[in-house]
Amino acid sequence: MECITSRNNEKIKYACSLKKTGAQGSDAVLAEGLRLCADAAANGVEMETCFLTAKWQQDPEAQKIIAASRSVYLIEEHISEKLADTKHPQGIFCICKKPTAVHTVDTKGKYLFLENIRDPGNFGTMMRTAEAFGLSGIMAYGCCDAFSPKVMRASMGAVFRFPVIEVADENDFLAGLTAAGMQLYCSVVEADAADVGILAGKQGIITAVGNEANGLSESIITRGTRITIHMSGRAESFNASQAATVMMYEMAK
Amino acid sequence: MECITSRNNEKIKYACSLKKTGAQGSDAVLAEGLRLCADAAANGVEMETCFLTAKWQQDPEAQKIIAASRSVYLIEEHISEKLADTKHPQGIFCICKKPTAVHTVDTKGKYLFLENIRDPGNFGTMMRTAEAFGLSGIMAYGCCDAFSPKVMRASMGAVFRFPVIEVADENDFLAGLTAAGMQLYCSVVEADAADVGILAGKQGIITAVGNEANGLSESIITRGTRITIHMSGRAESFNASQAATVMMYEMAK
Repeated sequence: MECITSRNNEKIKYACSLKKTGAQGSDAVLAEGLRLCADAAANGVEMETCFLTAKWQQDPEAQKIIAASRSVYLIEEHISEKLADTKHPQGIFCICKKPTAVHTVDTKGKYLFLENIRDPGNFGTMMRTAEAFGLSGIMAYGCCDAFSPKVMRASMGAVFRFPVIEVADENDFLAGLTAAGMQLYCSVVEADAADVGILAGKQGIITAVGNEANGLSESIITRGTRITIHMSGRAESFNASQAATVMMYEMAK
Repeated sequence: MECITSRNNEKIKYACSLKKTGAQGSDAVLAEGLRLCADAAANGVEMETCFLTAKWQQDPEAQKIIAASRSVYLIEEHISEKLADTKHPQGIFCICKKPTAVHTVDTKGKYLFLENIRDPGNFGTMMRTAEAFGLSGIMAYGCCDAFSPKVMRASMGAVFRFPVIEVADENDFLAGLTAAGMQLYCSVVEADAADVGILAGKQGIITAVGNEANGLSESIITRGTRITIHMSGRAESFNASQAATVMMYEMAK
């Protein structure tokens, strides 16, 4: 196994460039950590390059990642720190191809539509939660990069398994799906909106959740049924990701 | 208004010490940002010192914080960066006394019990969400410091408003409350556990959620009724904070 000792190695510089840009515009991403790399390998993601520190050479889990990778390099601790997005890196990284599967919408399915979610932790957590609830997929418009290191980590690997449909024109896209018979529900903070409980048991639905600070845009809200979480507390202060969790919980019923 | 220009000023060093230790062991905390400082002032928290950059001098919201603070100092941008826990600081900070209110348990109330929650973002989000759902309070055993900068920010000020009861001996504490007639429910990932829906409409209940990686300890689980979120997806992969959100949603019904 070839060992990389220089921080100026071209492969290391390329890997870091994927991290810096969040890999937007590239067809490859840099996955960090045992679990994320293992999730990529287990889900048939094309694994270009694996970088690992010496301690991983005999690890049984790491063996599967090594076996799945086209090329593998041993790296020193200081290179691991350069590649890392975390403070205490585990010392295992993979350059993977982004999944290229084209996801079609099941008009009898259950989807979460996200508009301008900007916090990587929120976006990743919503992917993880949507997968946990068995939703059909996420539709994302104007959200942060699904393959940035923080989103991938917060998703706990869901980014490699769960359908995320990138939407270019949200109005056209939603108009098409409602014309095809799907029901759109829009999460708002308004006392006279319908209760989130009406989502239970429905098929062919899309629940839209908006930006952390500004909520959903008016043009989306007017297309659907307004729903809200009716509670006795200070409901205006729900985090977008917590509100989405309640919506998905009712959808999954 | 006195202006502090040196990073070695004693007041600045003291403020930074509160940030570094997460203020554990001290009776004061360093709050950062307009919203958190305003929340502290609005909730009658004792405000020792306010530090702010020049741009805040004429801000109407900042005036309330200035009025509530015993002493106020103008700081230069580079001092703001030193005080800050965030990358892009707003330039307003307060040294506040920790709220000293002693919270008693309402045995007819609804509580979230947290065991060893270690992620500051999770802990703060759970406070915010518990407040949003109108719960009676949070009971915290072995959790990260409620007054660390990250927890305070994620709580969106709930840390200054919402009852958080620090528990020293969880077994004794819960034994006392169940003896007083409260019902304990323990969140687990087990298919044969009762559905989370049984929490709806109940009074005098405590729902326990455990550590992010290890869940609840056996000694707690054996004291209560095991509950779980029954869903078709990969429910094992719920984040502790998302699972707690669903629990609280049912409790608040």
